[in-house]
Amino acid sequence: MTNQQVIFENNRVYSDLALDAHSLAVEQTGGEVQGVSVQEEQLENALITRIEVMNEQGAKAIGKPIGKYITIESDGLKGQNRMVHDQLSEIFAGELASLANLENIRPHPNLEPTIFIVGLGNWNATPDALGPQVLNHLMVTRHLYQEAPPELRKGLRPVCALSPGVLGLTGVQTAEIIKGVVEMVQPNLIIAIDALSARSTARLANTIQISNTGIAPGSGLGKNRMAINQETMNIPVIAIGVPTVVHAITIVNDAMEELLKGNIFSPAERERFRHIDEAEKKRTIGNILGPYMGSLVVSPKGVDELILDLGRIIAGGINVALHPDITPDNLSLYL
Amino acid sequence: MTNQQVIFENNRVYSDLALDAHSLAVEQTGGEVQGVSVQEEQLENALITRIEVMNEQGAKAIGKPIGKYITIESDGLKGQNRMVHDQLSEIFAGELASLANLENIRPHPNLEPTIFIVGLGNWNATPDALGPQVLNHLMVTRHLYQEAPPELRKGLRPVCALSPGVLGLTGVQTAEIIKGVVEMVQPNLIIAIDALSARSTARLANTIQISNTGIAPGSGLGKNRMAINQETMNIPVIAIGVPTVVHAITIVNDAMEELLKGNIFSPAERERFRHIDEAEKKRTIGNILGPYMGSLVVSPKGVDELILDLGRIIAGGINVALHPDITPDNLSLYL
Amino acid sequence: MTNQQVIFENNRVYSDLALDAHSLAVEQTGGEVQGVSVQEEQLENALITRIEVMNEQGAKAIGKPIGKYITIESDGLKGQNRMVHDQLSEIFAGELASLANLENIRPHPNLEPTIFIVGLGNWNATPDALGPQVLNHLMVTRHLYQEAPPELRKGLRPVCALSPGVLGLTGVQTAEIIKGVVEMVQPNLIIAIDALSARSTARLANTIQISNTGIAPGSGLGKNRMAINQETMNIPVIAIGVPTVVHAITIVNDAMEELLKGNIFSPAERERFRHIDEAEKKRTIGNILGPYMGSLVVSPKGVDELILDLGRIIAGGINVALHPDITPDNLSLYL
Amino acid sequence: MTNQQVIFENNRVYSDLALDAHSLAVEQTGGEVQGVSVQEEQLENALITRIEVMNEQGAKAIGKPIGKYITIESDGLKGQNRMVHDQLSEIFAGELASLANLENIRPHPNLEPTIFIVGLGNWNATPDALGPQVLNHLMVTRHLYQEAPPELRKGLRPVCALSPGVLGLTGVQTAEIIKGVVEMVQPNLIIAIDALSARSTARLANTIQISNTGIAPGSGLGKNRMAINQETMNIPVIAIGVPTVVHAITIVNDAMEELLKGNIFSPAERERFRHIDEAEKKRTIGNILGPYMGSLVVSPKGVDELILDLGRIIAGGINVALHPDITPDNLSLYL
Repeated sequence: MTNQQVIFENNRVYSDLALDAHSLAVEQTGGEVQGVSVQEEQLENALITRIEVMNEQGAKAIGKPIGKYITIESDGLKGQNRMVHDQLSEIFAGELASLANLENIRPHPNLEPTIFIVGLGNWNATPDALGPQVLNHLMVTRHLYQEAPPELRKGLRPVCALSPGVLGLTGVQTAEIIKGVVEMVQPNLIIAIDALSARSTARLANTIQISNTGIAPGSGLGKNRMAINQETMNIPVIAIGVPTVVHAITIVNDAMEELLKGNIFSPAERERFRHIDEAEKKRTIGNILGPYMGSLVVSPKGVDELILDLGRIIAGGINVALHPDITPDNLSLYL
Repeated sequence: MTNQQVIFENNRVYSDLALDAHSLAVEQTGGEVQGVSVQEEQLENALITRIEVMNEQGAKAIGKPIGKYITIESDGLKGQNRMVHDQLSEIFAGELASLANLENIRPHPNLEPTIFIVGLGNWNATPDALGPQVLNHLMVTRHLYQEAPPELRKGLRPVCALSPGVLGLTGVQTAEIIKGVVEMVQPNLIIAIDALSARSTARLANTIQISNTGIAPGSGLGKNRMAINQETMNIPVIAIGVPTVVHAITIVNDAMEELLKGNIFSPAERERFRHIDEAEKKRTIGNILGPYMGSLVVSPKGVDELILDLGRIIAGGINVALHPDITPDNLSLYL
Repeated sequence: MTNQQVIFENNRVYSDLALDAHSLAVEQTGGEVQGVSVQEEQLENALITRIEVMNEQGAKAIGKPIGKYITIESDGLKGQNRMVHDQLSEIFAGELASLANLENIRPHPNLEPTIFIVGLGNWNATPDALGPQVLNHLMVTRHLYQEAPPELRKGLRPVCALSPGVLGLTGVQTAEIIKGVVEMVQPNLIIAIDALSARSTARLANTIQISNTGIAPGSGLGKNRMAINQETMNIPVIAIGVPTVVHAITIVNDAMEELLKGNIFSPAERERFRHIDEAEKKRTIGNILGPYMGSLVVSPKGVDELILDLGRIIAGGINVALHPDITPDNLSLYL
Repeated sequence: MTNQQVIFENNRVYSDLALDAHSLAVEQTGGEVQGVSVQEEQLENALITRIEVMNEQGAKAIGKPIGKYITIESDGLKGQNRMVHDQLSEIFAGELASLANLENIRPHPNLEPTIFIVGLGNWNATPDALGPQVLNHLMVTRHLYQEAPPELRKGLRPVCALSPGVLGLTGVQTAEIIKGVVEMVQPNLIIAIDALSARSTARLANTIQISNTGIAPGSGLGKNRMAINQETMNIPVIAIGVPTVVHAITIVNDAMEELLKGNIFSPAERERFRHIDEAEKKRTIGNILGPYMGSLVVSPKGVDELILDLGRIIAGGINVALHPDITPDNLSLYL
């Protein structure tokens, strides 16, 4: 999860979701964003949005690296209907499979690619425990695959997994741990799952983002953290994220903005507010949130159960996407 | 924890702490609050405030029942220094003992009073799990006491304990469960521990409140919940609480208030805002927080560890306060 | 769970299961046991055995109170096939419904009976946490039912639930806590779930026992513990149990017995062993198990996951058995 | 934890403890074991035994690699007296520091050595969770050390930590994960903590073993698992272990042995038993333990709490041993 002291970048509230970053850019430019393509597909229980950042211009416009970003939005994620959960697992599996393109990353025509699943985040902090939770429901097969005779390997692919913890728990940058394991295991693809921070509470636990750009923790924040992406790992990296918290700072900022949208103030007053000093704005937020400020997060009361459900949905989708013999019909056998 | 849909009462933000309720009243009346006495004691690591609501006038003025409210404020509660934790356990034990007045509630001159400790809250929701956590570190002795020969009972008092869960988990009002056990066990005192919601983030995990007025869940909220107090239980009830969350609604409200304190708006504009319709204010907050609204809570990232530490501090204090043979010097043996 | 210091009763190893107690009796008498009827039904994935202890003669013969005992045996309980789990939930639901006979315990022709589910056991000790685990997956509806208009109550019955803990955690006898709640809530049926100790490791997590005789903890052990049954609670009590541990003492005893079955010793030697002093036998066991002895339990390595699965299976079956609108087809929605 | 299908090696029950292996060898040879030196030190609350396997002859005699093995035996480990726990932390710290010899492994005269703590074992299986538990209480400092100015580094050493999980959870051999991290982080010492299986229940949670020979999982068992030692990691490896389970197989074997020690059988009969076929013995054990056999473990009922306490004691000792500014007097500040 973005562990940012300051959530503002260039006078703009930050979001881990390309979807929100794109919406903000549209709002600011008042129209189409150059260098970014967007395609939507509305299903019964979910809206899929496929965004592609095609070039540097697009990357700059929305503040996200060149690559593909797929979001699946559904209120079913936070509902408790297990049948809808299974449907969302399938939809997610389909998008993940198309992005992973496993047929094309075989190390040898006769060999299945090895996939390394990384569950990022802190298992001691509920809303940040999504990655470790997914690993609890994952089919880990690499050790079985290695010992099985070839005829029994059909229908499975070698999958290994690790929850590397967070810097405060290990004293080692997460990317370094992953890099070390990658060099020993020599996988062909990394899939990293992480809890995200959202731009607004409406996003909480209602969106899964899949991207092929990896994870670049806190890039805008002056922290020199190693990224987890194709460049650093030398293999493709798919990142999967779900927003599970909103920073309290974001909420307060929203409160201010919303206040000015109503009919309390005249247009002239609002205009004045829109141009007040950024420093004054931050000082005000500091007064409200006090010393804890940067570490305050907003989450729904039932977040513990939400994380369990999300972990099952995502693990189920990964299991289906990676193992050819797992189909929607027998998916529930593998959860 | 107050499970309120709406946190406002009479156009005023609600706080579980008498200390904050009193401060608000002072702010509003601009001076002393009639019917309420306040006494402060500054120690090295903590500030003790002893508030007494002496009559109905005082009760009405601060919105709290007649009775005594002691708060111990210390940043040491959320620090990680175990020696300071031990000191705070002792300070808390002293205040608890003076309020409990165990010598005076003996059922018989030769019999020690039986104390029933109730750990309120939901063990599945971290910030609400304070009560159940305390019970993990409590010396439970009633069953040993009953079987011990008289000469071995010295230095201990019979203590029993229960975490009754919350209505959503049990289908039974918490007070009903407690009442049922009270009628079977016939204790002479109830001590109930609960996580509280705070008025501001500065309060999070820095205050312990002890009161002899019991717990009246959601009294102002139209919900007909049975209270846990002398009136319903027929024995004295001491309530112990620590603020562990702030409702997101409170934060947003604060944001608005703070905004108007700055020099962005003219005095006339601020005055206008102060008199806007309450409905308009709520609508604005609703826009910001979205459908989750009432269930959104703000807590610090390390809340899981905070709750563990607070559980130990409070349990330690209760152990010292209740058992004559436990002293500050051997306290650590019983934690 | 039977917390017995000594597992032997009348020179006979004790089992919580009527099925095993009956088998032992058959073995000893060498034929039919008077006063006990037994009926078996073999299904695809499970063997159902319905034992009825019909009179005092039968009760004495197998050491279990008069009443009905149904056991469902299936290796599927400890497998990881979720479809088989769902089947076992249904089978279990059917047997539970027939024993509970809910139509006949209505408090009034127009009123559904209130059912009180009790999750016995210690949540801090994995193999003993079955009862509390079941409650995590139960549909608790009493509070909703009370507030719902009559037309919305159809298809649900009012269910409430409590995990009362164990004597060492609360200082109160479990039956006293339950009795207190029963007097407040006035339910029409108690269903109590408990982890059992088994006679042999083959039984571990492969049997569910349902009985209408309630629970009489440690009756033969000199401990004066209040039972949880129709007599003490004044309403019917159904007990549900699954063996999750074997006492180490049992294992050692088995080892000795088995040793004597082999061809190592001559018939004469075996006969001699069979008649050695019981005290000598216990001394030998004490030498092997050392001071921990009575508290040593044997459980399979994956017991944590087993308890989770068993909790879901049993909760699912209870949900189906109690609520008319839950059917095998939509069962998964309620798990 | 040794995950062995078969616990017997060369017709001898296996123990992870050098102390027990040595005792067995003494028993068998009837006197001193060549190539092994043993020194005992009796303290108030603990017995320290320092065993050195000096050459191949000694290694063969007791079945342990050449190197040093220190055991600290104390019933205080499983008691609940926190003061005794602190004393044991100190004793353990002293032995660990003398074995680690940190002054001699500096990478450069002006640089403190980096220490990598590995918490082996499965966090989902209570008795095997010792390693991960220790990490919960460890001072992890490497990331702080790197960013601190030189004058603030005094008194601390850079410590990093990882719980790599087990093969069944990750699909990767534990030693491979560690090796990968070692190559990235370049530490100067590994300290690996693991739960051990004991030879008898009397050992459960009453012994800490420290050795400089690393960990060679299942070497005698035909499994080709990579060891974690100086040879594989190219840096010194210290292993810390506490027995937390006894395999059920061991218990049954003990039962048989004990049976023959009593006065039930004549010396001639016993002698005959001692020479029965090993296969017959295994078959008998199989009959007793059934299909679960190899995975059945015996542990005391309160094992969950034991593991928590042991985790704190060991973490406290490591903190004192590694950081010069942590002394027995301020130790409690760092726990």
